[in-house]
Amino acid sequence: MLRRIYLDNSATTPVDPRVVEAMMPYLTDQFGNASSIHYFGQQAKSAVDKARHQVAGLIGSRPNEVVFTSGGTESNNLAIKGILERNADILVRYPNEADRNARVPHLVTSAIEHSAVKNVCEDLEKQGYRVTYLPVYEDGIVRLDDLKNAVTDDTVLISMMAANNEIGTLQPVEEIGRFVKELRASGRKIWFHTDAVQAAGKMPLNVEEIGCDLLSMSAHKLYAPKGVGALYVRRGVRLHPQNIGGHQERERRGGTESVPNIVAFGKACEIAAEQMATESAALGKLRDDLESRVGEMIPNVIFNGDRERRLPNISNISFRSIEGEGLLINLDMQGIAVSTGSACSSGTLEPSPVIRALGPPTPSSASETDEDRARGAIRFSLGRYNTAADLDRLLEVLPASVENLRKLAPASARA
Amino acid sequence: MLRRIYLDNSATTPVDPRVVEAMMPYLTDQFGNASSIHYFGQQAKSAVDKARHQVAGLIGSRPNEVVFTSGGTESNNLAIKGILERNADILVRYPNEADRNARVPHLVTSAIEHSAVKNVCEDLEKQGYRVTYLPVYEDGIVRLDDLKNAVTDDTVLISMMAANNEIGTLQPVEEIGRFVKELRASGRKIWFHTDAVQAAGKMPLNVEEIGCDLLSMSAHKLYAPKGVGALYVRRGVRLHPQNIGGHQERERRGGTESVPNIVAFGKACEIAAEQMATESAALGKLRDDLESRVGEMIPNVIFNGDRERRLPNISNISFRSIEGEGLLINLDMQGIAVSTGSACSSGTLEPSPVIRALGPPTPSSASETDEDRARGAIRFSLGRYNTAADLDRLLEVLPASVENLRKLAPASARA
Repeated sequence: MLRRIYLDNSATTPVDPRVVEAMMPYLTDQFGNASSIHYFGQQAKSAVDKARHQVAGLIGSRPNEVVFTSGGTESNNLAIKGILERNADILVRYPNEADRNARVPHLVTSAIEHSAVKNVCEDLEKQGYRVTYLPVYEDGIVRLDDLKNAVTDDTVLISMMAANNEIGTLQPVEEIGRFVKELRASGRKIWFHTDAVQAAGKMPLNVEEIGCDLLSMSAHKLYAPKGVGALYVRRGVRLHPQNIGGHQERERRGGTESVPNIVAFGKACEIAAEQMATESAALGKLRDDLESRVGEMIPNVIFNGDRERRLPNISNISFRSIEGEGLLINLDMQGIAVSTGSACSSGTLEPSPVIRALGPPTPSSASETDEDRARGAIRFSLGRYNTAADLDRLLEVLPASVENLRKLAPASARA
Repeated sequence: MLRRIYLDNSATTPVDPRVVEAMMPYLTDQFGNASSIHYFGQQAKSAVDKARHQVAGLIGSRPNEVVFTSGGTESNNLAIKGILERNADILVRYPNEADRNARVPHLVTSAIEHSAVKNVCEDLEKQGYRVTYLPVYEDGIVRLDDLKNAVTDDTVLISMMAANNEIGTLQPVEEIGRFVKELRASGRKIWFHTDAVQAAGKMPLNVEEIGCDLLSMSAHKLYAPKGVGALYVRRGVRLHPQNIGGHQERERRGGTESVPNIVAFGKACEIAAEQMATESAALGKLRDDLESRVGEMIPNVIFNGDRERRLPNISNISFRSIEGEGLLINLDMQGIAVSTGSACSSGTLEPSPVIRALGPPTPSSASETDEDRARGAIRFSLGRYNTAADLDRLLEVLPASVENLRKLAPASARA
């Protein structure tokens, strides 16, 4: 039987067996609704409370600043729309046709956000908000000066991911946090959100050091099940709930608490806090080894994004003259799972907008475009259960796969 | 050790062991992201597809009319806000101060909806929408004529629960569906949503027979885990997504699919479809037996809501002259879990608005008010794992508990 190797841990992770064990009682005997007053309800409530402490522990927040959601997408939606709707009185929304030149609320974000931020922003633009998508450079990183220049008197929200999901590059969130703090010191109403879905559990995150008001997390990126996440909401920051219903999550998110998944998420955060330093060091070593061997074995490759300021577990490599999707399918047939970009964007056949945002590679031939780079990009993302043997196996098949696909490529596309 | 008896199945249900078994592979080996193209992703995708067929099977819809959500609250929010936002071009929203008399979109709902509908409607009123909350009568049922009279030229959405969560009464959703169909035949743009969170799995539901455009379900009310639900969206009905992100759920709900929970929900629907007829008959018999024995053993009780047109598993009884919360706590100390109303409303100390909406009891003393009825109300809700022995135990302790609390009640409150 084909031994399967999973190198797509940025799309989702296996659930840690310790996490499954922690959640099982809540799928069996301890099934109460955390809002119920009786014994069964109180059991569930205290399990949720414990998980809230565990999640808070990973990001250095107070437990009551953690709002459980159904995942990273909901966290991002709640953060961005929640802030804007709650503060509608200080914002101008839905300007009339006659008021086209009226001042409208302005958001600043990056050109390489996950679709759960990008598509929210695009939706807001249709409603009349103005959004600036900051460029990144070939290193996949925004510049603080660009951000400072983009902020106007009407800017009410900055949403900047902590680490990118396709290339792993880190944005200067602490510098942005300091800048927002300065603006606020002069009386400005402005909020700072960071999507830390990929960063959480892979690098130290502390909401005080970042200086953010809102921070999004997703459980299934750190060895807990899909369908649960959290939004950190700084004390005093008010949001308009998006899931409107009961009093759960202190009126910030209605709906019966997903107790088993919340318990699992809490346990996963506890494990991440304990293991992160050693695990990330080990993954970084594996990843660097992968890249140096690919560089030696395969000609005409581009390593995408800054190779220092990035997460330890992601390597994004463009193989010139081939289609990434073809390579993905070829590797999958040989039992190796990788991706061409965000799983959430699959289904579109467009080359990754993240890789395109890096521009044409340097050095490159005169005719090479950002699209050429994006077309052949593959994300290898490592995780807790990968071993050196997995990479050995990958490197047994990858050079030949690339070579075969290059032979098949039309002459015009060949390097 | 205290034998614990759970009589709060309308708040949440234990997970059926067959459901746990069905979901376990997706918490262990088959952990892929259903949006990934590779083997792991395709395993997850086909599991989600299978679950979509199972859910559709329970409500007589096409599989692609089922949108998975994080639960009943999200389903209700998506249905109501999704319709209004998507159709903003045909609606007048956020009227200017000068336009106070402008025609604004109008919704019709009932006075006894769950907070996940009621609070959404109240939020919409603050935004400028107009909402009519139809009264119910002592039977807990709205009248079709009241609804017909409430509908105006500006009515764009009717949201009417299939079965109430506190008293179990059934609303005339099929008649409403026929009425909406007539309106539509004359060219009106109007949609019909039903919150079937309590009804699903307890009574036959068929979206064609109901004639609804949107129907909300929640998994944890039918022996699957908390944190997943579905919204039926009739083919051709367009919604503005509330969770904006990736392409999941055919652009109707972004966010990585909660695969283990979705598989669990599908299995629970399959079991419900098979067992519903016999299970509901058995629960109805237990429930009727409970009520006749309470009626014989305890004086001064009121059975709330119509005793025919209701779900088989809910009995809501007001014990005159006592506080329901006191009785709940007293029973809990004796190992029996019941509730005073919706778990989602706990935390408020207000008597249940659902029971208040029934008015003062008939017959009643001249001074008795709707609040007296509501104050002493207890919901007993039965489920798959309750037995006659559970009710025997309840009836061993209930009469004395009621009598003791009545002795403690202030003279003024005594019947």
